[in-house]
Amino acid sequence: MNLHLPLGFRFAGWHAGIKKHPQKEDFTLVHCPAGATAAGVYTQNLIYAAPVAYDRGRTPSADIRVVAVNSGNANACTGERGLRDCREMGRLAAAAVGVAESQALVMSTGVIGVFLPMDKIAAGATAAAARLADDEAAFLSAARGILTTDNGIKIASRSLTISGREVRLAGMCKGAGMIGPNMATMLAIVMTDAALTPADAQAALAAAADDSFNCISVEGHMSTNDTVLLLASGGQRSEVGGQRSEGTGDRGQETGDTTHHSPLTGSDLALFQTALNELCIELARQIPDDGEGASHLITIEVQGARTRDDARRIAQTIANSALVKTAVAGADPNWGRIVSAAGYAGVPLDPAGVGLVVNGHRLYADGAPVAIDAKTVSAAIRASRETSLVLTLREGSAGIRFWTSDLNVEYVRFNADYTT
Amino acid sequence: MNLHLPLGFRFAGWHAGIKKHPQKEDFTLVHCPAGATAAGVYTQNLIYAAPVAYDRGRTPSADIRVVAVNSGNANACTGERGLRDCREMGRLAAAAVGVAESQALVMSTGVIGVFLPMDKIAAGATAAAARLADDEAAFLSAARGILTTDNGIKIASRSLTISGREVRLAGMCKGAGMIGPNMATMLAIVMTDAALTPADAQAALAAAADDSFNCISVEGHMSTNDTVLLLASGGQRSEVGGQRSEGTGDRGQETGDTTHHSPLTGSDLALFQTALNELCIELARQIPDDGEGASHLITIEVQGARTRDDARRIAQTIANSALVKTAVAGADPNWGRIVSAAGYAGVPLDPAGVGLVVNGHRLYADGAPVAIDAKTVSAAIRASRETSLVLTLREGSAGIRFWTSDLNVEYVRFNADYTT
Repeated sequence: MNLHLPLGFRFAGWHAGIKKHPQKEDFTLVHCPAGATAAGVYTQNLIYAAPVAYDRGRTPSADIRVVAVNSGNANACTGERGLRDCREMGRLAAAAVGVAESQALVMSTGVIGVFLPMDKIAAGATAAAARLADDEAAFLSAARGILTTDNGIKIASRSLTISGREVRLAGMCKGAGMIGPNMATMLAIVMTDAALTPADAQAALAAAADDSFNCISVEGHMSTNDTVLLLASGGQRSEVGGQRSEGTGDRGQETGDTTHHSPLTGSDLALFQTALNELCIELARQIPDDGEGASHLITIEVQGARTRDDARRIAQTIANSALVKTAVAGADPNWGRIVSAAGYAGVPLDPAGVGLVVNGHRLYADGAPVAIDAKTVSAAIRASRETSLVLTLREGSAGIRFWTSDLNVEYVRFNADYTT
Repeated sequence: MNLHLPLGFRFAGWHAGIKKHPQKEDFTLVHCPAGATAAGVYTQNLIYAAPVAYDRGRTPSADIRVVAVNSGNANACTGERGLRDCREMGRLAAAAVGVAESQALVMSTGVIGVFLPMDKIAAGATAAAARLADDEAAFLSAARGILTTDNGIKIASRSLTISGREVRLAGMCKGAGMIGPNMATMLAIVMTDAALTPADAQAALAAAADDSFNCISVEGHMSTNDTVLLLASGGQRSEVGGQRSEGTGDRGQETGDTTHHSPLTGSDLALFQTALNELCIELARQIPDDGEGASHLITIEVQGARTRDDARRIAQTIANSALVKTAVAGADPNWGRIVSAAGYAGVPLDPAGVGLVVNGHRLYADGAPVAIDAKTVSAAIRASRETSLVLTLREGSAGIRFWTSDLNVEYVRFNADYTT
């Protein structure tokens, strides 16, 4: 793929030894030498990890300079010591790139309930900082450093022209299990060289996440660590060391700013929002597509709902039914499981108005079965990596798209023996 | 086991040919020659099957004479034709035992979206009626006739003395998959020779179901067909043919009534309620214990919740997490999955007040991990068919017990190929 790396960012991935694997990167730094506007959306789990508490307290922000991510350890359910460790991780990363601790964000993912190995974090921060670069190899290494059980990196990028200027967006994410909205053990960092105010960045990210990272599940288990960050550099500005004073948010005036622009507004901001939504959807879909053991990426569309929230609750209930997921894994057009899941989503609906189309085959209409050749539908499910389920209601005109994985024996094998 | 069959009931199970298996019973009749007070609790799924609509419309009732159950076909998602078929099934069963159609109840379980084979239902009703008997063999055959993917019959019975008279309770249920509160593809019939008013019967059954059938799940998929019926004969009364006029509900005066008593009240009713709760719990636990492919019956206790509903939501969220279920299957003391599930149940809680005990081992206290030997806990999970998870909160004094199955590769294998 053609990577459109935004200006104003440097990347590094490093093997700090947090994961058992002897080579895999498990420590990532993203450095914004001249600072970036930062926004974040986070897990809604009340049992949230230390880095979620840390980042939530400082986003949106007008001046973030470094994001430190470790994989292999979630720093979740670790109490007061976990909070102290997280703060120290932020301090170590900031010191490694020469900025203030208040300009750092932290993400962690991996096993729950184990204290961070702070010696490895400290050495990782120093080593990664020494390797920061703004090229593709560095970006890809950083994208590897945030992975846990993922089969491969999950990235997306695009560029567009807004008011005559090229704007680039690039993102990386991770997640393959413990994935259920609102979000999951998923981490994502989206970077852009567009200029955004903190409030606009926060609103744009929340809107994009609502269409993407909040519309995916693997098994519906909401994680303690879900975090999506948006960093907007506003273009390539000063070099390492940052001449700006900390936290001023005063973007247009610092020394060394060569291509910096005013924050997007109006239709320019709308163009950016569309690109951000597309990018986030492209990233988010990769998560259930890589769901542990998954053989199908299932797209669930609910149409004709009274509200978008109703549509989401129905789609999510279908997505989280083990009976639906095993049926798709077995290429079994067992539509009764799908229709019955819609009925217990807690959303009022007229059963006589329910219809279902699977991979283009209408199986259910007006609340009654349609005569089908089950073998044909089964063959269609088996033949494609993607399965499309379209559930139609007669309640209104709202709809949603939602993505999930099927459920295979490999998922169970994998998850029956994760920590021991 | 010692069966305490209540007086006033006759039973039959018959192979009508609805299931593919050439011998297995798939049609059950329960006959109350002199009538019974009947109560019912039903699925809360909005996509509910025809027999649920049928029974819901006529319970509580003062005079039910026959319950007809078929397995192998749920008569769900079958539209108007399904409703007509259900009514005809009730009529056929009533005719076979010489009572009015309005005195019949119907239950169906099995595959969704296929029309009932009415010729087989008709022949089955006649054949089963000819075999009705009040002995243990007939009861066991009836208990087999309601099964689908169950590995064996699920029955319970007990007797107690209330105001000097022996009262017997006996129940049968089925269910191994598509089990999620509120209820599941589970059917249960509980019979007693206690005398109850319709209102008391309904209240007693609702209370008992709340502690039992509404506290179990296998995979959290709420069925279209869940039904629990309570039939209270009031003692052994007239023989087949019933001299009572239909629907009078006038229990004390009919000819041939030898041991009939007035409806229970006050402390007698409370004694009965306790026995009914225990019986329903004994039946309900058998369902996740027989969960498809299950190797562990998991008991989840939540203590220290603000309300019982809060406790139920937390227990249910833990029970429905595939990550928790696979961890138990793998004897993996991955307590982070259990604690994090509690955090997304939608119930306010203080993370610092959360504790967890697994099979007697305290793994988590005051929101932080306790140093444990994971191998010891793993061995304890592996060694026992039953796994106990006790989650403690500091929100209040309400609690609940909830039962579920673990999640094994056999569940996935089984459910990936059910209809095709």
